[in-house]
Amino acid sequence: VSNPLKKRIGIIGGGQLGRMMIEESLRLNLQINTLDAADSPCASLSHTHIVGSLMDAEAINQLASVSDVITYEIEHVNTEALIALEDQGYPIIPSPRVLQIIQDKGLQKSFLQQKGIPTAPFSLIYNADDWKIKAEQMGATKFAAKTRKDGYDGKGVMLVSIEQLKSGAIPFKTPSLLEQFVTCSKELSVMVARHTDGTIYAWPVVEMLFDPIANLVTFLQCPAQINESIETQAIDIAMQCIQQLDGYGVFAVELFLTAQNEILVNEIAPRPHNSGHHTIEACYTSQFEQLIRILAGLPLGNTALIQPAIMMNLLGADDFSGTYKLQGIDEAMRMQGVYIHLYSKATSKPMRKMGHVTILATDIAQAHQKALKVQEILKFVKD
Amino acid sequence: VSNPLKKRIGIIGGGQLGRMMIEESLRLNLQINTLDAADSPCASLSHTHIVGSLMDAEAINQLASVSDVITYEIEHVNTEALIALEDQGYPIIPSPRVLQIIQDKGLQKSFLQQKGIPTAPFSLIYNADDWKIKAEQMGATKFAAKTRKDGYDGKGVMLVSIEQLKSGAIPFKTPSLLEQFVTCSKELSVMVARHTDGTIYAWPVVEMLFDPIANLVTFLQCPAQINESIETQAIDIAMQCIQQLDGYGVFAVELFLTAQNEILVNEIAPRPHNSGHHTIEACYTSQFEQLIRILAGLPLGNTALIQPAIMMNLLGADDFSGTYKLQGIDEAMRMQGVYIHLYSKATSKPMRKMGHVTILATDIAQAHQKALKVQEILKFVKD
Repeated sequence: VSNPLKKRIGIIGGGQLGRMMIEESLRLNLQINTLDAADSPCASLSHTHIVGSLMDAEAINQLASVSDVITYEIEHVNTEALIALEDQGYPIIPSPRVLQIIQDKGLQKSFLQQKGIPTAPFSLIYNADDWKIKAEQMGATKFAAKTRKDGYDGKGVMLVSIEQLKSGAIPFKTPSLLEQFVTCSKELSVMVARHTDGTIYAWPVVEMLFDPIANLVTFLQCPAQINESIETQAIDIAMQCIQQLDGYGVFAVELFLTAQNEILVNEIAPRPHNSGHHTIEACYTSQFEQLIRILAGLPLGNTALIQPAIMMNLLGADDFSGTYKLQGIDEAMRMQGVYIHLYSKATSKPMRKMGHVTILATDIAQAHQKALKVQEILKFVKD
Repeated sequence: VSNPLKKRIGIIGGGQLGRMMIEESLRLNLQINTLDAADSPCASLSHTHIVGSLMDAEAINQLASVSDVITYEIEHVNTEALIALEDQGYPIIPSPRVLQIIQDKGLQKSFLQQKGIPTAPFSLIYNADDWKIKAEQMGATKFAAKTRKDGYDGKGVMLVSIEQLKSGAIPFKTPSLLEQFVTCSKELSVMVARHTDGTIYAWPVVEMLFDPIANLVTFLQCPAQINESIETQAIDIAMQCIQQLDGYGVFAVELFLTAQNEILVNEIAPRPHNSGHHTIEACYTSQFEQLIRILAGLPLGNTALIQPAIMMNLLGADDFSGTYKLQGIDEAMRMQGVYIHLYSKATSKPMRKMGHVTILATDIAQAHQKALKVQEILKFVKD
């Protein structure tokens, strides 16, 4: 297809990331097709929505047949079906071979280690006995135990002490990895876009802000409050990851900044990411538009920050499941630079990602004040 | 409907203005229905697209039956059908009574005059003899003759001299108005949003920039290069127009700034307008989102400028009609702050509005330089 505006793009997964890709591509009139359940957020917006499982090879082939290029908005897809397509010469971005490495935290960590990219010390766990043996070999006092596959949003991760492991604790029964727990001063994220034409751009570094009591990420802030040398190093390490993977597409590289100002790669996501949502309003080119550009064969766009931003997730309230309305929406929408994004989910559930809010301001202190206000007033309630 | 996010919005007209309303409302998951031809730009995006004429009362009633509130993205609609609906208590924003005044340039000018809003001197023309009689009565040397109804994009407007009219020239045979030609130093536009809750906001004043040779508007620039006192007056006059009309919705008020620094109202549009397209990227709240907020019963959003902007229309090339591609798109999309919007039109025709480009920069001189570059490189060519 020589006319980039006629390229048909297929997305495996029809959740909020796919939906924001569609939202960000409408002004270029690109055709986007999706594969997911019938009631997924993309269903009403995509050109052709194929109803099926992300694991169903036949459904993936059907998506490929109505598209010119395929991507995915979630890691848990049928990688073998994608490899078969790629072997036939069908373009998949990022390559399923890159996805295979990222999908398996054991392979991912081994890859980082092998390429000399700084990451926390770890051991692979193949059987139940390994937990104790490897813990003693590593000589640390505190660990993060992680399943190699299918971890998501905190699932498949557990903090354990050397004492627990010595006394026979088995955090997981599936293939896992045992990672030395790193005390970090900050958690950072760098979004990276790498184009098939070889160009590679990063967005400004994002910093996760934690609630000191609940120890949960509450806000994501950009720019991060770090010095220039750390910013440069973080971006350099993130770009190295993607170049070493030889990956094309949009990636999130999550980083730890240790108390000793050392940067360690935590993990990589091969898709648009929570830590890039603010780019919709805060940067010249959003993470979603950037991926669309790569898929359509259009050049990368500028990633500079227009205004400082804070992003917060909107989660389903703890006290109900069902149809909902958003209490406080009036007050929030009156505020300058407050952008509410809803993900078109039919029902709210405790902790479900229902949407997010991006807050722009001329300085980060002001953005932070507004974010606290928005956090206070917005709440999903029964409708 | 107490939950604003469940309000179903109907738009009469499914062109680019409707499409941009849909684009700007997706992150709030609002349901938007449209009425227009089958292949119109909104057809693939609206929740329910009713195929029919904008003059067809039955089609309008059908749109009303699947929506909770109706607006229109073009003036040429069946006003009587809307009045009948409004008389039954169905909410139409802006009111068709406001539309009736605006639709008829004779009524519109008389309204402005009656309310003491500054506008160029004029006379109403009822029959062929009036042209000469009124011209002589007015005592000017140069006039703009305008049909009262159905003028659009320069159609139904003609410049004539006193000599031509004295010697019997009949510019139009339909009810018209004869306006004293005003030599203006600038043409300005003010977008105004007025909410049913009584709040009224304006966006910063926009200035039309003309090609000195072709005498056509080439760029629209915001902020306008005018002093603060003129800015304040322009916004004040524009707000007066909408308050005096008692109109709710989003309006464009086109203004002349005379050589004597006098501000005259040229004409009013009761809908989002070309001179507000830059608000999508350049302002905290766009003209399209603002109208959606009013229709859904959400509060008005802040209208301040984030960055200076220039907007240029993308017109179909003179040398062909048919399917097209956009030459130069790669180069333009590499530039920082260049946003290409395409209107999803199947074919290009000479002078057809195919899309627009908004250019952001940290200062207006830089935006202007970029705009000249974009104008030079972008061109629709046969595909």
